[in-house]
Amino acid sequence: MMDFLEEPIPGVGTYDDFNTIDWVREKSRDRDRHREITNKSKESTWALIHSVSDAFSGWLLMLLIGLLSGSLAGLIDISAHWMTDLKEGICTGGLWFNHEHCCWNSEHVTFEDRDKCPEWNSWSQLIISTDEGAFAYIVNYFMYVLWALLFAFLAVSLVKVFAPYACGSGIPEIKTILSGFIIRGYLGKWTLIIKTITLVLAVSSGLSLGKEGPLVHVACCCGNILCHCFNKYRKNEAKRREVLSAAAAAGVSVAFGAPIGGVLFSLEEVSYYFPLKTLWRSFFAALVAAFTLRSINPFGNSRLVLFYVEFHTPWHLFELVPFILLGIFGGLWGALFIRTNIAWCRKRKTTQLGKYPVVEVLVVTAITAILAFPNEYTRMSTSELISELFNDCGLLDSSKLCDYENRFNTSKGGELPDRPAGVGVYSAMWQLALTLILKIIITIFTFGMKIPSGLFIPSMAVGAIAGRLLGVGMEQLAYYHHDWAIFNSWCSQGADCITPGLYAMVGAAACLGGVTRMTVSLVVIMFELTGGLEYIVPLMAAAMTSKWVADALGREGIYDAHIRLNGYPFLEAKEEFAHKTLAMDVMKPRRNDPLLTVLTQDSMTVEDVESIISETTYSGFPVVVSRESQRLVGFVLRRDLIISIENARKKQDGVVSTSVIYFTEHSPPMPPYTPPTLKLRNILDLSPFTVTDLTPMEIVVDIFRKLGLRQCLVTHNGRLLGIITKKDVLKHIAQMANQDPDSILFN
Amino acid sequence: MMDFLEEPIPGVGTYDDFNTIDWVREKSRDRDRHREITNKSKESTWALIHSVSDAFSGWLLMLLIGLLSGSLAGLIDISAHWMTDLKEGICTGGLWFNHEHCCWNSEHVTFEDRDKCPEWNSWSQLIISTDEGAFAYIVNYFMYVLWALLFAFLAVSLVKVFAPYACGSGIPEIKTILSGFIIRGYLGKWTLIIKTITLVLAVSSGLSLGKEGPLVHVACCCGNILCHCFNKYRKNEAKRREVLSAAAAAGVSVAFGAPIGGVLFSLEEVSYYFPLKTLWRSFFAALVAAFTLRSINPFGNSRLVLFYVEFHTPWHLFELVPFILLGIFGGLWGALFIRTNIAWCRKRKTTQLGKYPVVEVLVVTAITAILAFPNEYTRMSTSELISELFNDCGLLDSSKLCDYENRFNTSKGGELPDRPAGVGVYSAMWQLALTLILKIIITIFTFGMKIPSGLFIPSMAVGAIAGRLLGVGMEQLAYYHHDWAIFNSWCSQGADCITPGLYAMVGAAACLGGVTRMTVSLVVIMFELTGGLEYIVPLMAAAMTSKWVADALGREGIYDAHIRLNGYPFLEAKEEFAHKTLAMDVMKPRRNDPLLTVLTQDSMTVEDVESIISETTYSGFPVVVSRESQRLVGFVLRRDLIISIENARKKQDGVVSTSVIYFTEHSPPMPPYTPPTLKLRNILDLSPFTVTDLTPMEIVVDIFRKLGLRQCLVTHNGRLLGIITKKDVLKHIAQMANQDPDSILFN
Repeated sequence: MMDFLEEPIPGVGTYDDFNTIDWVREKSRDRDRHREITNKSKESTWALIHSVSDAFSGWLLMLLIGLLSGSLAGLIDISAHWMTDLKEGICTGGLWFNHEHCCWNSEHVTFEDRDKCPEWNSWSQLIISTDEGAFAYIVNYFMYVLWALLFAFLAVSLVKVFAPYACGSGIPEIKTILSGFIIRGYLGKWTLIIKTITLVLAVSSGLSLGKEGPLVHVACCCGNILCHCFNKYRKNEAKRREVLSAAAAAGVSVAFGAPIGGVLFSLEEVSYYFPLKTLWRSFFAALVAAFTLRSINPFGNSRLVLFYVEFHTPWHLFELVPFILLGIFGGLWGALFIRTNIAWCRKRKTTQLGKYPVVEVLVVTAITAILAFPNEYTRMSTSELISELFNDCGLLDSSKLCDYENRFNTSKGGELPDRPAGVGVYSAMWQLALTLILKIIITIFTFGMKIPSGLFIPSMAVGAIAGRLLGVGMEQLAYYHHDWAIFNSWCSQGADCITPGLYAMVGAAACLGGVTRMTVSLVVIMFELTGGLEYIVPLMAAAMTSKWVADALGREGIYDAHIRLNGYPFLEAKEEFAHKTLAMDVMKPRRNDPLLTVLTQDSMTVEDVESIISETTYSGFPVVVSRESQRLVGFVLRRDLIISIENARKKQDGVVSTSVIYFTEHSPPMPPYTPPTLKLRNILDLSPFTVTDLTPMEIVVDIFRKLGLRQCLVTHNGRLLGIITKKDVLKHIAQMANQDPDSILFN
Repeated sequence: MMDFLEEPIPGVGTYDDFNTIDWVREKSRDRDRHREITNKSKESTWALIHSVSDAFSGWLLMLLIGLLSGSLAGLIDISAHWMTDLKEGICTGGLWFNHEHCCWNSEHVTFEDRDKCPEWNSWSQLIISTDEGAFAYIVNYFMYVLWALLFAFLAVSLVKVFAPYACGSGIPEIKTILSGFIIRGYLGKWTLIIKTITLVLAVSSGLSLGKEGPLVHVACCCGNILCHCFNKYRKNEAKRREVLSAAAAAGVSVAFGAPIGGVLFSLEEVSYYFPLKTLWRSFFAALVAAFTLRSINPFGNSRLVLFYVEFHTPWHLFELVPFILLGIFGGLWGALFIRTNIAWCRKRKTTQLGKYPVVEVLVVTAITAILAFPNEYTRMSTSELISELFNDCGLLDSSKLCDYENRFNTSKGGELPDRPAGVGVYSAMWQLALTLILKIIITIFTFGMKIPSGLFIPSMAVGAIAGRLLGVGMEQLAYYHHDWAIFNSWCSQGADCITPGLYAMVGAAACLGGVTRMTVSLVVIMFELTGGLEYIVPLMAAAMTSKWVADALGREGIYDAHIRLNGYPFLEAKEEFAHKTLAMDVMKPRRNDPLLTVLTQDSMTVEDVESIISETTYSGFPVVVSRESQRLVGFVLRRDLIISIENARKKQDGVVSTSVIYFTEHSPPMPPYTPPTLKLRNILDLSPFTVTDLTPMEIVVDIFRKLGLRQCLVTHNGRLLGIITKKDVLKHIAQMANQDPDSILFN
């Protein structure tokens, strides 16, 4: 990279699909670009304006990402809400109204029956003009299943035909891309369009999946597409990954209405290279996205999510016991889910099952819809369910979950003490228990199908149900046994001791933590959902317990497990490499292998090099002073070599197969009448990374992670001995963990 | 480090004072330790228990740090509150009550005059039995100044005599320590004790300083001292720095009642090496500290800070204009403050002034106290002032700032519309303007004196005053000119359009941002102080503007400026190195210098090595195969070499000056009758980092930062050519920035 006088050859410095980028080279290229603009800016006003606009383009890009992903999130929310209600009926007052909206605008409605208004017609009312009786029930049931199947069919077909990358949650792939891997089209415009449409369809079909994970993918697509408008980001893979990290933060921000939590999620869970400048920009993008969504106001409550709550009731130290129990439950569920889901996905990959994605989706949808309709808690959308479970029963709540005895009998103005459960609560408990079992089982089969499917909402629902069940149980225990030693110090009769909604929230955090192994970002997201600093302690206790329990049963979170299942070359930054191997144990060539293929700096002909290229598949070759000394000069990439030789043969006069290639500053002395030589110093990396053969692998792994290397050369006492690529490192890590090293697919 | 059979020699692997640690070596040592414990844990139950307790010791340590720093913060708050009031009078109802407490317990007090009760006696009441008249005023004035001088004298004397490291805010030094520098005693028990006591004295003396920065230092002292209870952390400098990062988060958490903000502050501003595990632990420590402080409840309002507020009034988009103006003011103030303060501190260092710290402190205290007493806004403690400025005027507020006309005339139940300012407000405005000028000037001279002094509170006060002035101005403008085009769309007559308290808050954020250049952590801290997500946008707009304006006038924040002033070897992780120099331009030896001093692997005698040691001051030497080939084998540290030779001479029979030292695996063949050889392979670092001479310095700087290196060897075509130390890198950066390279004092 020393010869700046020569014209760059097009193609040199770009990457093939399914390859790993070289972070050091990319960052260095960006610094060159920046330096050039800064130097030029002193020359003319126009160049100065260019320099300023270049500096601000990052912020502009963040603004655009925030606006676009916020708008898309609002659109998705509104459409999914409307289509979910379409499964039950239609609004004759206006076809575009959902159930809630429809009855808001109605005049014929009382507060108690705010869900029933003449404008809203269930399918049985439309078809057989009645809503009563067994036949009407069957008509509604049938229509519900039919719509669900239709939505699911549309979703899976669209994904299959137009954008196969639009399926799943996308977070494992985004993690891999951010770590420096190239998957062309994964964040393209078709993926964006199809994923947005099919996400709405998938959520509306009533399957046990959420929109939160896919929203991160959608936001990253927005980021990637918008990058094309700015030279600075279009051409540089490292800079683009900074933008994608910020876009991921914006995605979580709109998914949970939690801008700070979104930034921390991006930092903790998704990102690989996260400089502080990105932190600040991510925060900006996340905020813009949140405010865009809020101005769209998809839920009509000026909140960003359906399940926002504001608690004010305090909790008692003793309640940490049930909270920790919920943490244990969350950890167990997380570990169980990951194991069974991975086993099922592996089965899908390896058997005939994987060949019929449409059939699979339709079968799962049919089972889900058939089992879901009879139970009101499975029939409603999962985020509505979570919202109801999080909710603390107020005076005017008409839901079954709030059907306590003496419900209108408040002792002190407005405050609701603990009360005995009424019939409604008991029946709700049974229905919730059935919902819990259904969700646990069906989610295992749903996540990983060929439709967009997020995992946050189903996990939270499982935890929220378990939490609410435990919470109501605790409440009844405290009511009937307030004289027990554990209660009598803090819970007198008629006091409001237990908040079942808080238990639901803690349970949701625990289950989400068990599945994803998030920690700080999880607590901050839940904190932003409640807005009360005092609930951080219960949330943290549950999240910590859940992570410990889940980690004890299996080290990986669901995203890492899927990354490994798919064999993506992802070098985990969190795990310490704990084995005592050395660089010489990992490098190629192994003992007894033929020697490392090298180029010499000034004695090989074009023919020699071309035959080495055709005989090997290595993606790069070290250049040495001479084969005898094995003293390293630099490293040259296969792709650059091929392009340069081709280019030289085409354009440079007289370069033939017997021409000598040299990588030195000056041409070597040649005998007269030999063909012209070919200088390739400009494609030679003169600062390849080297380690000694006795370097512990833990240090090598650290270097690969922190500097984002693609390969590293190994020397012994100054002589070149071998090479370690990122793939070698990943294979070695897999081998040390007793996994199949050949599961690492790409390089 | 290959020979594990040999007994380690005591002292090998430790560091001298004012030296830089080798992160790679420290982390590698911790991994060895961890591996050993894990391997042993399979052998016996006792070892298993040891392994588990080792794993949990980190969490236990965090708990202890949280408890200790929370308690100390509570103690400091309570004592400072009491001693601040002592300057004005004393409670005869109980000497240990402060003014507020004293009158709480009184029966003779009405709500309006809640500050005046018979139990509280001003000094004039105690001495001349009256509170009226000019003489009483003079007595009170005199006593106020006297107490202030006494407190300041005690503070500076204690610091001078017992713990010179206890002065200042401590954050620049903590940043340096966390980046891998060793300053023995800076975080020791004497510093802790003296800093805690003198902090209370300094705050109570009424000087323009805050306790927030020093609290971070106090928390880090707690962390460092508690590390001594755990083997894992006592012996490993890298692990200990993880703990200190968490302790810094706990310090900010109690300083501002903002646990999440504290963690982000530690991440953004203070820390150097911040693995994700530390993020989670920091969060835990910060929470424990916050809850400990809350259970102590130093302000009697179950809030963690005096200036917590809960706003609910919305803001209008047009108000972004004044908010951005406040941002510009904050940026200007920040840049001005840093320049003048650094200039003054440099004067203190270079002239006679630095020799009389006690006189300096007394003079500044006297000036502050004399100017402060007549103005009620300077007389009250700065955090009380901030609290009053942040506050939105309620119906029952009796402060002068809320003395609007028609103050009890509310149009709609309870809500207070904008009103014309009364006499009280106008006189408050004048007093505040004077306060602003005084604070701006006096803070420049206060920060950097030999007493504990934080900068957060004075900066916030400056911003809050400016903000409140602008806010009241805007409010009056909107009231009298609500028909102007800019107002009439959103501010009708009698509506509550402008919240001056919000302006104060935005101004505080802007000024704090201008001085410290914090971004995300600043916004999150302010968010946690208000609890409303909707105020993030104004805060962010102000913080961003302020950072841009301040950065345009000078790149460094106050802490970085002080680091540079003191010449600490701190390698800034945020700044990109933008120059196009190469490793060969920086390495030693320079062109024309004598060759690099090296050891050979098997041909030098003890005498040779000792003469090299005595002739040079290098802290380490490369070991090569032979002087002719210059092929690198490894690197050996001076300190290890001295200790090992000394040890060998003492213990190993027959090692004399003519003994050959060898670093190879096996002893070189020796002629008969030569003295026994000395094997030193165990102190040889067999994996030294190398770069080529053509590596761009931007990459070298990146490697130093990310891997935390102390030195790096430079090769050319496989031959050793030179060495680059961290000091060389820092000097080169200083040189490229046109600063004096010799200002880097330590290595």
